[in-house]
Amino acid sequence: MNTSPPPARGGTAIIRGYCPDARGINSALTRFISERNGNIVDYDQHVDEEPGIFFVRIEWALDGFALPPAELAAAFRPLADTFGMNWTLTFSAVRPRLALFVSKQPHCLYDLLARWRGGEWSADIPLIVSNHPDLEPVARQFGVEFRVFPITAENKASQERAEIALLREQGIDLVVLARYMQVLSEDFVAAFPNRILNIHHSFLPAFVGARPYHAAHARGVKLIGATSHYVTGELDRGPIIVQEVSRVSHKDSVADLIRKGKDLEKIALARALWHHLNHKILVYSNKTVIFE
Amino acid sequence: MNTSPPPARGGTAIIRGYCPDARGINSALTRFISERNGNIVDYDQHVDEEPGIFFVRIEWALDGFALPPAELAAAFRPLADTFGMNWTLTFSAVRPRLALFVSKQPHCLYDLLARWRGGEWSADIPLIVSNHPDLEPVARQFGVEFRVFPITAENKASQERAEIALLREQGIDLVVLARYMQVLSEDFVAAFPNRILNIHHSFLPAFVGARPYHAAHARGVKLIGATSHYVTGELDRGPIIVQEVSRVSHKDSVADLIRKGKDLEKIALARALWHHLNHKILVYSNKTVIFE
Amino acid sequence: MNTSPPPARGGTAIIRGYCPDARGINSALTRFISERNGNIVDYDQHVDEEPGIFFVRIEWALDGFALPPAELAAAFRPLADTFGMNWTLTFSAVRPRLALFVSKQPHCLYDLLARWRGGEWSADIPLIVSNHPDLEPVARQFGVEFRVFPITAENKASQERAEIALLREQGIDLVVLARYMQVLSEDFVAAFPNRILNIHHSFLPAFVGARPYHAAHARGVKLIGATSHYVTGELDRGPIIVQEVSRVSHKDSVADLIRKGKDLEKIALARALWHHLNHKILVYSNKTVIFE
Amino acid sequence: MNTSPPPARGGTAIIRGYCPDARGINSALTRFISERNGNIVDYDQHVDEEPGIFFVRIEWALDGFALPPAELAAAFRPLADTFGMNWTLTFSAVRPRLALFVSKQPHCLYDLLARWRGGEWSADIPLIVSNHPDLEPVARQFGVEFRVFPITAENKASQERAEIALLREQGIDLVVLARYMQVLSEDFVAAFPNRILNIHHSFLPAFVGARPYHAAHARGVKLIGATSHYVTGELDRGPIIVQEVSRVSHKDSVADLIRKGKDLEKIALARALWHHLNHKILVYSNKTVIFE
Repeated sequence: MNTSPPPARGGTAIIRGYCPDARGINSALTRFISERNGNIVDYDQHVDEEPGIFFVRIEWALDGFALPPAELAAAFRPLADTFGMNWTLTFSAVRPRLALFVSKQPHCLYDLLARWRGGEWSADIPLIVSNHPDLEPVARQFGVEFRVFPITAENKASQERAEIALLREQGIDLVVLARYMQVLSEDFVAAFPNRILNIHHSFLPAFVGARPYHAAHARGVKLIGATSHYVTGELDRGPIIVQEVSRVSHKDSVADLIRKGKDLEKIALARALWHHLNHKILVYSNKTVIFE
Repeated sequence: MNTSPPPARGGTAIIRGYCPDARGINSALTRFISERNGNIVDYDQHVDEEPGIFFVRIEWALDGFALPPAELAAAFRPLADTFGMNWTLTFSAVRPRLALFVSKQPHCLYDLLARWRGGEWSADIPLIVSNHPDLEPVARQFGVEFRVFPITAENKASQERAEIALLREQGIDLVVLARYMQVLSEDFVAAFPNRILNIHHSFLPAFVGARPYHAAHARGVKLIGATSHYVTGELDRGPIIVQEVSRVSHKDSVADLIRKGKDLEKIALARALWHHLNHKILVYSNKTVIFE
Repeated sequence: MNTSPPPARGGTAIIRGYCPDARGINSALTRFISERNGNIVDYDQHVDEEPGIFFVRIEWALDGFALPPAELAAAFRPLADTFGMNWTLTFSAVRPRLALFVSKQPHCLYDLLARWRGGEWSADIPLIVSNHPDLEPVARQFGVEFRVFPITAENKASQERAEIALLREQGIDLVVLARYMQVLSEDFVAAFPNRILNIHHSFLPAFVGARPYHAAHARGVKLIGATSHYVTGELDRGPIIVQEVSRVSHKDSVADLIRKGKDLEKIALARALWHHLNHKILVYSNKTVIFE
Repeated sequence: MNTSPPPARGGTAIIRGYCPDARGINSALTRFISERNGNIVDYDQHVDEEPGIFFVRIEWALDGFALPPAELAAAFRPLADTFGMNWTLTFSAVRPRLALFVSKQPHCLYDLLARWRGGEWSADIPLIVSNHPDLEPVARQFGVEFRVFPITAENKASQERAEIALLREQGIDLVVLARYMQVLSEDFVAAFPNRILNIHHSFLPAFVGARPYHAAHARGVKLIGATSHYVTGELDRGPIIVQEVSRVSHKDSVADLIRKGKDLEKIALARALWHHLNHKILVYSNKTVIFE
């Protein structure tokens, strides 16, 4: 269970959870809310038949709800335990803090900063981290702190520790790898479980690893893609969130694939971030349940 | 309310309904099922915020359920009335009977018959109706009765009355217009409310009416489409169920659009039929809610 | 015929043209280039059978070509006249100057400025024009001049004259309406024939005019779209360049459609601009031939 | 070089070829046609810059052409040799003969037979081959000979020899594997180079081999696909012709993926066949150039 700090008041509460399927779960969950005078804004459940797992997302208005946010988790726990539910409680009024990690390519960075300034999400972006100084002017344009951590084989471990310390100091909730061209160590990943978003420039599981557009061109595919996913210890094998594809033809050079792919990367990363920030994603068994 | 005849036993029961949004609906509905020992297989609800309408689809297993199917509607009615709910009760074990209406083009007809024979749905197709004799060999290939009703301005009303009589005699639940090139009268439509599926060969509302591919070519669009919808009294203005599109270019002649469009028509019609036969569609305010 | 000022040297020359179809055109055109020692980089032709029109785009390297750019048009004219060809000669080395027109929504503006700074095209953007002051900070972020021309029913004609004067003074080759929410007068449009790009937030010809997302929501469509086109005197009826679509469902409110549509608008506008800047588009009979 | 037997008269001739890029190829090729009074219906060329390879497809009307079809290849050869061109000459009036290979799943078979009967292509389908007897009724419905060759580890080589003999006896030009669930030996493949079309039920190169929908479900992808390709000696690694994809979600079981995938398989296979039958495909370096 993972509980974000409850807000003073207002907005909605969101519970996402999963447990072995059983009779009466829907009824028990909805009654828990309605008995406390909660108004369910969105209720979405799904049963994965083969393993017999029940998944649920409940979102209800805190206005008029009988319990203050700070007491909610404790009140819900006994019911969850009855069903052996693994769950998360979050609040729409809590504004998450994001750190963007970049290298040299600006397209995803620009796109995220523009969406942020355009008001697409309720979140703060106090920090941009890079292994190269190239994109500092973009950070400056948008008034965001830019920190460079050059990475070599020798200093990688210490630099990552410094990055983690910085992220903690800044109270970062989510790391977004916006075409960051370094593989994070398992230690780094473990420090932010299911809280590191990445964009990979292929339709996974095809073309794992480096230079996927070159590999796609060599194979002669008729579609290219981009995949956003949570980062796990295994490269490009984390839970997939969004995949986008675009038709290509024999006329497209590698440079054309790279150019066309940029749009897919921007869209796939932004949509994943939108789902994450709206508390729509549940990770189970290295897959995502996305409550749309 | 519209209740299909309940089956002897087995399968699932499905309630689809809508009503003004209010606190406690989810809780009341799920309790209704769980108190009678029903196992909810699928529960999907949605609130359309602006008009404040609550939509729901509940599907639960009849195995072990406390009520026999024949008593279900009567037991549910008081609860539905509490919320002012407009609802439908159907059963997965009831095998619907379809009539396919065609003219001269075989592609949708072949596609539907092949899916039927391939076991994609649980339904019967006892009848094909046409205003032309051309496709009788296809009907014969698949062993389905083929009836011709030539339509002229003079005989249209009487021919439609004969068709309706035939459909009733055969116990037809759903009429599928598989590129039937006649506009049905309001009387015909009224006889099968939300039970006539049509495929229109454009992405509606663009290119309503005749020769949409010619119109699309003349306008120079870069996408063509197909739209499946329920038929209402207004031509091509009924509730949309599925829309499919495909890219086209200046190289495509009208004949190319027609050829490419056939695949869209087949897919859009078959998907709509799949949703219909799986009790996934609810019609409200000339729109469809599709519980996927 | 329309000839952009020829460059000193280097790059490629591009001829786009159309004429009544006839035997020997391909042969005559390719010989014209090869006899002058030109290396054809790209040759694309298309015959629209019904009206019998031949369309062609030839791009060849100027390096080693026997004629200097400044003499090319005069040398080609007699051959073109033989076939009654309507043609355009342009040069890849000429860097076009763009003016972006905006109102209050920043997403297309940000996207175009980020692509420009990211080096996606070879073009200059010296000017942003708006009828509102809201987006001046974005212009300042990117160091582009921002000029406000408030429009009222009374001052529209005079403001447009002032805008045209400014555009001419700045040597603007192409006007890009990046969600500019004013209808340009016929006089303005006539001053920049096929040189005003617009993005309309629907899949045209559906939902012409104002508030297309509201109209799409009311109609209950299952796809929304965006269309980039050249502006003509008739609102939203100019030659279509690119159309993009995205699936939506009953769960999407008008606000969701607007949010999802922004990505389509960005992509459709940027792709159209890319085609334009790469001399890929030929306009004929209110349609576009796009040589991809 | 591969020349299909020339027709008596009428229709078009099609040359597809590739060679090292050089100045003057376009001019020489188009002059070859126009000097013999040929009317070019379609001329499409492409240069792959990196390896410097020139690709071309020329289609011209035989009506009024100075050479009879039977003398064309000999007349063209010297010109092709000048450029070191690898080329193919085919004729639209030659009606190819197809054999469909199937196992137990009928959807692709039905789709191909329906398109054939609906007149989508000019081709004959005299033969259906299967390793199981299950689909014989479908063959009978459409009046096509059905031959069963059960395959075991022991008899595979001899059964394949018998199949090849049958295909030769029947004058088969193209083998279409319409969900044929046997891997063909290298000997079989070598007997029909670039003349065996397959449909694989994933977006290659993801999920090569058996049970791709199960693998896709296990990986939690958000898109499934289907890929049509020419068969080579390496399983699922032949030149890709068409790829189709469809969105899926966590709600889709393996059975849903299989159901949704069937539509993709039908479309991807039929489109590849259409390109093949219209002489649009050129294979080079294990990739396809598709002249659309």
